[in-house]
Amino acid sequence: MSSIPNVLAERYASPAMTAIWSAEGKVRLERQYWVAVLKAQKDLGQAVPEGVIEAYEAVIDQIDVGSIMRRERVTRHDVKARIEEFCDLAGHEHIHKGMTSRDLTENVEQLQVFRSLLVIRDKSVAALHAFAQRASATAALPLTARTHNVAAQPTTFGKRLAMFGEEMLHAYLALDHLIATYPARGLKGAVGTRLDQISLFNGDADRARELEQRVLTYLSLPTAFDSVGQVYPRSLDLRTVSALCDLASGPSSFARTLRLMAGHELASEGFAKGQVGSSAMPHKMNSRSCERINGFHTILKGHLAMAAGLAGDQWNEGDVSCSVVRRVMLPDAFLAMDGLLETLLTVLQQLDVFEAVIEQELQRYLPFLLTTTVLMEAVKKGAGREAAHEAIKEHAVATVNDLRQGSISRNDLFDRLAADGRLGLDAAALDHLRETGRALTGDAVTQVQTFAQRIGEIAAAHPEAAAYRPGAIL
Amino acid sequence: MSSIPNVLAERYASPAMTAIWSAEGKVRLERQYWVAVLKAQKDLGQAVPEGVIEAYEAVIDQIDVGSIMRRERVTRHDVKARIEEFCDLAGHEHIHKGMTSRDLTENVEQLQVFRSLLVIRDKSVAALHAFAQRASATAALPLTARTHNVAAQPTTFGKRLAMFGEEMLHAYLALDHLIATYPARGLKGAVGTRLDQISLFNGDADRARELEQRVLTYLSLPTAFDSVGQVYPRSLDLRTVSALCDLASGPSSFARTLRLMAGHELASEGFAKGQVGSSAMPHKMNSRSCERINGFHTILKGHLAMAAGLAGDQWNEGDVSCSVVRRVMLPDAFLAMDGLLETLLTVLQQLDVFEAVIEQELQRYLPFLLTTTVLMEAVKKGAGREAAHEAIKEHAVATVNDLRQGSISRNDLFDRLAADGRLGLDAAALDHLRETGRALTGDAVTQVQTFAQRIGEIAAAHPEAAAYRPGAIL
Amino acid sequence: MSSIPNVLAERYASPAMTAIWSAEGKVRLERQYWVAVLKAQKDLGQAVPEGVIEAYEAVIDQIDVGSIMRRERVTRHDVKARIEEFCDLAGHEHIHKGMTSRDLTENVEQLQVFRSLLVIRDKSVAALHAFAQRASATAALPLTARTHNVAAQPTTFGKRLAMFGEEMLHAYLALDHLIATYPARGLKGAVGTRLDQISLFNGDADRARELEQRVLTYLSLPTAFDSVGQVYPRSLDLRTVSALCDLASGPSSFARTLRLMAGHELASEGFAKGQVGSSAMPHKMNSRSCERINGFHTILKGHLAMAAGLAGDQWNEGDVSCSVVRRVMLPDAFLAMDGLLETLLTVLQQLDVFEAVIEQELQRYLPFLLTTTVLMEAVKKGAGREAAHEAIKEHAVATVNDLRQGSISRNDLFDRLAADGRLGLDAAALDHLRETGRALTGDAVTQVQTFAQRIGEIAAAHPEAAAYRPGAIL
Amino acid sequence: MSSIPNVLAERYASPAMTAIWSAEGKVRLERQYWVAVLKAQKDLGQAVPEGVIEAYEAVIDQIDVGSIMRRERVTRHDVKARIEEFCDLAGHEHIHKGMTSRDLTENVEQLQVFRSLLVIRDKSVAALHAFAQRASATAALPLTARTHNVAAQPTTFGKRLAMFGEEMLHAYLALDHLIATYPARGLKGAVGTRLDQISLFNGDADRARELEQRVLTYLSLPTAFDSVGQVYPRSLDLRTVSALCDLASGPSSFARTLRLMAGHELASEGFAKGQVGSSAMPHKMNSRSCERINGFHTILKGHLAMAAGLAGDQWNEGDVSCSVVRRVMLPDAFLAMDGLLETLLTVLQQLDVFEAVIEQELQRYLPFLLTTTVLMEAVKKGAGREAAHEAIKEHAVATVNDLRQGSISRNDLFDRLAADGRLGLDAAALDHLRETGRALTGDAVTQVQTFAQRIGEIAAAHPEAAAYRPGAIL
Repeated sequence: MSSIPNVLAERYASPAMTAIWSAEGKVRLERQYWVAVLKAQKDLGQAVPEGVIEAYEAVIDQIDVGSIMRRERVTRHDVKARIEEFCDLAGHEHIHKGMTSRDLTENVEQLQVFRSLLVIRDKSVAALHAFAQRASATAALPLTARTHNVAAQPTTFGKRLAMFGEEMLHAYLALDHLIATYPARGLKGAVGTRLDQISLFNGDADRARELEQRVLTYLSLPTAFDSVGQVYPRSLDLRTVSALCDLASGPSSFARTLRLMAGHELASEGFAKGQVGSSAMPHKMNSRSCERINGFHTILKGHLAMAAGLAGDQWNEGDVSCSVVRRVMLPDAFLAMDGLLETLLTVLQQLDVFEAVIEQELQRYLPFLLTTTVLMEAVKKGAGREAAHEAIKEHAVATVNDLRQGSISRNDLFDRLAADGRLGLDAAALDHLRETGRALTGDAVTQVQTFAQRIGEIAAAHPEAAAYRPGAIL
Repeated sequence: MSSIPNVLAERYASPAMTAIWSAEGKVRLERQYWVAVLKAQKDLGQAVPEGVIEAYEAVIDQIDVGSIMRRERVTRHDVKARIEEFCDLAGHEHIHKGMTSRDLTENVEQLQVFRSLLVIRDKSVAALHAFAQRASATAALPLTARTHNVAAQPTTFGKRLAMFGEEMLHAYLALDHLIATYPARGLKGAVGTRLDQISLFNGDADRARELEQRVLTYLSLPTAFDSVGQVYPRSLDLRTVSALCDLASGPSSFARTLRLMAGHELASEGFAKGQVGSSAMPHKMNSRSCERINGFHTILKGHLAMAAGLAGDQWNEGDVSCSVVRRVMLPDAFLAMDGLLETLLTVLQQLDVFEAVIEQELQRYLPFLLTTTVLMEAVKKGAGREAAHEAIKEHAVATVNDLRQGSISRNDLFDRLAADGRLGLDAAALDHLRETGRALTGDAVTQVQTFAQRIGEIAAAHPEAAAYRPGAIL
Repeated sequence: MSSIPNVLAERYASPAMTAIWSAEGKVRLERQYWVAVLKAQKDLGQAVPEGVIEAYEAVIDQIDVGSIMRRERVTRHDVKARIEEFCDLAGHEHIHKGMTSRDLTENVEQLQVFRSLLVIRDKSVAALHAFAQRASATAALPLTARTHNVAAQPTTFGKRLAMFGEEMLHAYLALDHLIATYPARGLKGAVGTRLDQISLFNGDADRARELEQRVLTYLSLPTAFDSVGQVYPRSLDLRTVSALCDLASGPSSFARTLRLMAGHELASEGFAKGQVGSSAMPHKMNSRSCERINGFHTILKGHLAMAAGLAGDQWNEGDVSCSVVRRVMLPDAFLAMDGLLETLLTVLQQLDVFEAVIEQELQRYLPFLLTTTVLMEAVKKGAGREAAHEAIKEHAVATVNDLRQGSISRNDLFDRLAADGRLGLDAAALDHLRETGRALTGDAVTQVQTFAQRIGEIAAAHPEAAAYRPGAIL
Repeated sequence: MSSIPNVLAERYASPAMTAIWSAEGKVRLERQYWVAVLKAQKDLGQAVPEGVIEAYEAVIDQIDVGSIMRRERVTRHDVKARIEEFCDLAGHEHIHKGMTSRDLTENVEQLQVFRSLLVIRDKSVAALHAFAQRASATAALPLTARTHNVAAQPTTFGKRLAMFGEEMLHAYLALDHLIATYPARGLKGAVGTRLDQISLFNGDADRARELEQRVLTYLSLPTAFDSVGQVYPRSLDLRTVSALCDLASGPSSFARTLRLMAGHELASEGFAKGQVGSSAMPHKMNSRSCERINGFHTILKGHLAMAAGLAGDQWNEGDVSCSVVRRVMLPDAFLAMDGLLETLLTVLQQLDVFEAVIEQELQRYLPFLLTTTVLMEAVKKGAGREAAHEAIKEHAVATVNDLRQGSISRNDLFDRLAADGRLGLDAAALDHLRETGRALTGDAVTQVQTFAQRIGEIAAAHPEAAAYRPGAIL
C-alpha cells in the first residue's frame, strides 16, 4: 500500500528537526517522560516494586509505530494505545499513575515545541552571522537604492543586506524572549486542579506540586502555568507560530529583493559547488531557493491562521477540537521554518554579486539622482535659481524620454547640462559631482558596522550555533 | 532512520483520497500522462519507433520513490529526476518531447485536484443524504430552539438538522459548479505561447492545439485556460480551497451545535458498534468526532490563508515561489476535507437522540416562551391588557428568579398564572395553551420535507454516491 | 469632537458603492423595506388604518443618524432604536409587525450585499473590456517573457495582458454564478420556523410564505434559503468575500508585474492628465496605483480571514457573535474591491508602453533564447552535434560572464558564434535566425484574439457597464 | 452627501483611543512633530528666522481635514497636501527641511501605535485586576468542571476565572515586553542612509544622528532601528497585531465559556444598571457582550492576516503597497482591541453568578464523578474489587440511561449503590462521600490565590490603570 510522507520533513527539513517530530521520536520522548515521572513518584514515596523502572527503561527504544496504530484503531484512544504497548513490552503496569492523558500529551508536545525553538534559535544565529559577514564584505559597494522599485538614491550593497539582517535580528530577540518565558502546562490532572496527583499522594498537595517541579526540571522548561484547565491556553501556540512568522519576515523580504536583483542581473543566489546552470541557457539565474523561502513564509502564514483559529476558542476547561489542528500545525510550522533557514543559509553562502552590472545601473541613474545637487552647485556658481531649475528639468525630461524611446542608450544628462550656459557648470565640474555622487551613501557604512557588531556579540555568545553550516538542499 | 508520515493521510483520510496524493500514485499518473502524450504525438505524425510506447507502458508500475529522490538530490530538478527514472526503466528516451516541466506538472497536479473534487462531491452527496434521512425521521420532534444559546422558541429536531444540511447543500451546488467549469492549464510550453509544441510540429499551430485537446480529453477536464503563462493562475487554487472551506461550514456548525446539545444531554454523537464509553464515567458523552470536524475546518481555513497568499502574487509569466506551498496545501486540504466527511458520515450514522431530555428542556422553558400567547388569551377572555401584562411579567420574573436561586426546581409559572385572578385563565385553559404551544413549530415540518425532497433528487442522480458508507474512524 | 471616517469610503471607493453602505443609505433602505412589508401585509388582509402607510412614506428621508444613536445608547438594541425613531417621525406604531429583528436586519444587509455585487460585476465588465482593448492593441508586440523573473522565451505584450485578463475573466464568471444563485434569508421569524408571521396570519402558513415571496420580489433576489435559523448561514458571506478575493487576483498579479516592468522601464502605469512626475526626478515612474491594487488585495485577504472565522461557527439557531465582524467586514470588503477596480480602470487607461526599451531587452536576451535553434541549424548545415553543442555552450557562458563583469555591454554571442568555424554558420545566417527568433511568439496573437472575442461578447451583453469610466483617484 | 464613519470608532472604542486615530488627532501630532524637528534643527545650528516657529505653533490647532483632502486631490500626494496646508496657515515655508515623506509618516504612525499600546496595556491591567477580584470572591465555590463540554471533575468558579485571567496575564507580559523594546524608524531619509539630514548638516553625520536622537526622545520611544530602508520593517506591525490577538485570547475563551454557562443558567453577563431584560421573556439572558468579545477577536484575526500579508513582502528599500492596508489595519486593530477591553471590563463588572443552579448541576453529576472513590471505599470495607466494579458499572449505566430516558429526573445512583449488598456501603457512608466529593477541587483555591497575588503586584505598580472603569457600552 502506498503511503504519503510529510513533504516538509521529507524534502526540506534537517535531521535535527525531523528527529523531534517523527513518530518514533515522540514515542521515545513519551517513554522517557513516563519513566521520569515514575522515578519522581518513587522518590516522593510512591510504591514501585524493584525492577519495574529498569524493565520499562530496557524497552524504551523498541518502538513499533504500526503496532501502536493497530491498538489505537481498537481503543479509539491514542494515549491508551501507547500505554498498552509500552506496558506489554515491559511486562508491568506501573506508568501513568495519577496521570490523565493531558498530563502526558500536553507536556510532551510542549517539550517538542521547546526543543524545536532551540533548534530554530541556533540556526537564526547562524543566519544572522552570515548576514553580518556578507554585509561587512560589501559595506562600501555603492548600489542604486530603489523605492517603488525605481532608482531613488545611492545606498550600499552591504547596507541593503544589513537592512534585512536587522529585521531578522529584532525577530530573533523576540524569539529569545519567548524561549526565556515559555510556560509548560505541568502535571495538573484532568481539569487543572492537580486533583489526581494530590489523590495519589493522599491529599498532600505540597508533594503534588513538588512532583510537578521535578518534572519541569526534567523538561528544562523555564516556567509553568499555574491556573490551567485540561490544556494549556492555545494562545501560547499562537505566540509561538507568530514568532516563527516574524522570524521568517526578514529572510523573506531579502529573498524577494534578491529575486528582483537577479532580474536585473545585479546579483544571484548562486549555485552549489558542482552544480551548473542549464548549458543551453547560461543566462538563466533562476532564484529557486529564494522563491522557496517566500513559499515557506506563505506556509507559515497559513499555520498562523490555524493557530489564530484555536486561540480564544476554549470551551470550559478544554476539549480536543484543537487536536487534529495541532497535529498538523505544530510539526509543519517548525519543519517549514527549519527548511526556510536551511535554504537561507545556503543562499547567503552561495550569493553571487555582479559588481560590474551594479556599477552600470548606478551610472545609468546617477545623473538623475544628482539633479538637486547640480542645482545647488549652479546656484553657488551664480546661476539664478529659477532659470537653473528650469534648465535642469528640461534636460532631465528630455533625457529620460530619449532613453525610453531608444534614441540614446546611455544617460547623457550631464553632457547636456555641461552644454547649457544657463547653469554655468562645465564638464569637469559635473564629472566631479558625479564622482562625489557615487559616494553619497550617507551613513550606510557605519550602519553596516553597527549591525555587524551587534551580531558579533550574539555570535560570541553562541559560537557553536554561529558556526553551523546548512546541509545540502534539494 | 525515522520518517514522518503525513498525519492527515495516515490517521483520517480514506484510501480513495490517499491513492490520489501518494508519491506512488502521482508517479503512476505522470507516466500514464507521458504515454498518452506520446501516443497523441504519434497519431499526429511524430516519429516514434516501434515498441517504444510498449516499453514505457510495461514499466509504469515499477515505482521506486527512493530512487527518484536520490536522482533529484543530484539534478536538483524533480521533473528531470522522474524522466530519467522512467526512461532508464524503459530503455528509451522518447517521452516529454516538446514538453516543458510545467506541461507535465501543472496538468498532473490539476488532475489530482480534479479527481479529488469528484471524491469530495460524491461523499458530500452521501452526507446530504444522511442529513435528509435523519432530519426526516425527527421532522416533528419538538425541540427548544436557542438563540444566543438561550431558549427562544420551539422548533423541531429535524428542522435543526435540515438547517445545517441546507447550508451544506448550497456549498455542494457551488462545488458542483466549480467542477463543471474547472479549467486545465493545458500544453502551453515554457511561457504559455505553445511555442515548444508548435516547434515540434514544425510551426503547425493547429496540430499543437489539437494535441492539447486530445490530452484534455484524456484528463476528462471540462475546459481549459487559453492565455496562461508558465503556470495556471493560482486564483484557481484559491477558488478550489475556498469551495472546500465553504463545504465544511455546514458540517462544522452542525458539529458545534451537537457539542452544545451533548452538554445538555439532548443528543450525542454516539459510539461505534462494539465501542463502549468509560465504564467509570458512563455519563461522559465526549463529542470527540464533532470536535474533530471543527478541527478539520480550522485546518482548512489555514489552507485558505495559504491559497490566498499565492493568489495575485504572480510575477510575469510565473515562477515557483508557489511550489512548496502547493506541495503542502493541495494534498492536505483534500485529505482534511476527506477526513472531515468520513467523520461527519460516522456521526450522522451513530447520532443518538435523547427524546426524554429534549422534552424536559421544552417543559422547563415552554411557559416562558408562551407568555405572549397567554397575554392574548387573557385579553380575549376580558382581562385588561395592561393589568394582564403586569401580572404575567411579575410572575415570570419571580419564577425565573426562583429557578435560579433554587427555591423551585420545576417551572411553575403556569400554576402561578392560573392562581392569579387578574388574568381570568384557569388551569385547564393554561394546560390547553401549553399543549398547543408544544406544537408551535411553525413551518418546521414542511421545511424538512422540502429539504428532503431536494436531496432526494440529488441522491437519485448519484445513487452510488448516496449509498456510500464511511470507513471505520480512529 | 473629532470623528474617524471609514478610510476606504473616504479615500478610495466610488459614490455608487458608498451610497449602499452609508448609515443614511441603510436607514432609508430599512424604511423602504418596512413600508413594503406593511403594504404586502395589508394586501394579504392585515388591518392597517387609512393614512398610516402614507405617514411612514412621508418621513422616509428624514434621517437623523445621531438621533438613532442616542436612542440606541438607551435601549442597547439597535433595531428598537430605529423602529422608535421611524414611528415617532410618522406618529404611528404599525411597522415591524410579526417581524423579529433578524427579519429586518438579515434581509436588508443581504440587499446591501447583493446590490454591491451588481456594482462590482459591472465594473468588472469595464475592466475586462479595458484589458481586451489594451491587449488587442499590443497583441503582436514582442516581449521577453520571464519565468523566475529571468528571460525565458519571447511572448507578446498583449499576450501578457490577456493572461491577467483571462484570470480575471474566470473569476468574473464565478461571480456571475454567485449573483445568479444568491439566496436571501427571507421572513422566517425568530428561529427560522416562520412562526411569527404565521401567527400574524392566524395560522395560515400559505399566506406567510406568500408574504415572504412578495418581499423577495421586492428585494430582486433570485432565490431564498428555506430551512434557516435566526440567521442565514455565514458561509454565504465566506462565499461572497472569497469571490471578491478571487476577482482581485488577476488585477493584483497584473499590478505586481507592472511594478516589475516599471523597474525595467518597459512600461509604466502612467499619469493622470495634468499630473506631472517630480520635476527633479523625472525618471521616477512610481507605480503607486499598482502598489495600491496589491494593498487592496491584502486587505481583502484579511476580510477573507474574518469571513472564514464566522463560517461554521454557528451555535444552535444562531446568535450575534458575528455582528460586529459583519459590520466591519461586509462594507469594507466591498469598498476595498470597489477602490481596487477604480484604480485598475485608471491604470489600464493610463498605461504607458515603452516599446524601445522592450526591444532593447529583447535584443539583449534573444541570442541566449535562440541557442537551441542555432544548434539545430548548425547540425542541419553539417556540424557534428556534440562539437556544435560544446561550441555554443562555451560562447554562451563566456558572453554571459562578460556581460556580468562589464567587459561588454552588448550581447555579442552571435558575433562569436559566426566567428567559430565549428558551427558553419555565417553572420547572415545568424542574423536571419535572430530576425526569425523575434517572431517566435507561438500562438500569442491568436490567444489575444480569442480573449478579446470572449470579452467582446460579455461587453455586448453589458454595454453600459463596458462603457464605464472610473472617477478621479487620489 | 452621506458619509460612512469608522464603525469601530463610532460604536465601540473609547475616546482615549479614538483621539489617537482621528484625522484631526493625526494632523495635530504631525504638526507637533514638525515643530519639534524644526526646534531641534535650530538648536543644532540650522538657520530658522525669528518668529517662524511661533507662527507654526500658533496654527497647530487650526485643523480643516476637508481642506487637506481637497489639496490632496490636486497633488495626489498626501504629505505635500498637509505641508502646504500647514505652511499656508503659518505663512512660512520652513518645516520638513531635509525630511522625506517617510521621515514624517513612519514616525508619526509609530507614535500612534506606541501610544495605543500604552492605552491597551493600562486597560489590560484593569481587566486583570477585575479577573482577580472576581476570582478571589468565588475561589472556593465548587463548580462542575467540563471537558469536551461534559462534566469531568469538580473545580471552583474562581479557578475557572483565574484560568482565563492567567491566559491573559501571559499575553500581558508579552505585550509589556513589546512596549519595552518597540523600535522607531527614525529620521533616515529617502532610502534609510540618513543622507538628507547629513546633507542638511553639510556632511556632519554626527549631528544628523544627534537630531534623530532628540526626535526619538520627543516620541518617548524606547529604541530605534538603525539599518532601515525607506520604511521600518513591516514585521513590526505583525508583531504588534499578533500581540493584540494574543491578548484577546484569554478574554475570548472566557466570553465563549460564559456563553456556555449562560446556556445552562449557571451565570450571566448581567445587565447595566437601569437596563432590564425583555419583560415578556425574563429568562432570556442573552450574552450579547460576550458574543461581541468573540466578534472582536475574529476581527483581530483578520487584521493579523493583513499584517502577515505585509510582512516579508518588502521590495528593495520599500514602497507603498502596504499603505492602504496600514491605513485600515492599524487603527482598526487598536479600535477593536479597545472595544473588546471596554466590553470585557463591563462583563466582569456585571457578571451574575447563580449559585443555586451551580449547586444543582454539581449534585446531578457528582455521583458519576465519584464512582472511582466509591470503588476504593468499597474495597477498603472488604468488597471484592471486581464484584464492586461490576456493581458500580451496572448502576451507573442504568442511572444515566434512566436520566436520559426521563424515567428519573434526579441522579439516584448513590441510592442504588446503598441498596446493593455487593458494595457494603450504606447511605450514611455514601452521603459522607458525596459531601467530601464536593470539596474535591484539588489545588483550586491556592491557584486562585497565586493568580490574585501576581495581579496584585501588577496593579500596585499601575494603580491608576487598575482603577480604570469602562465607559457605558452600546
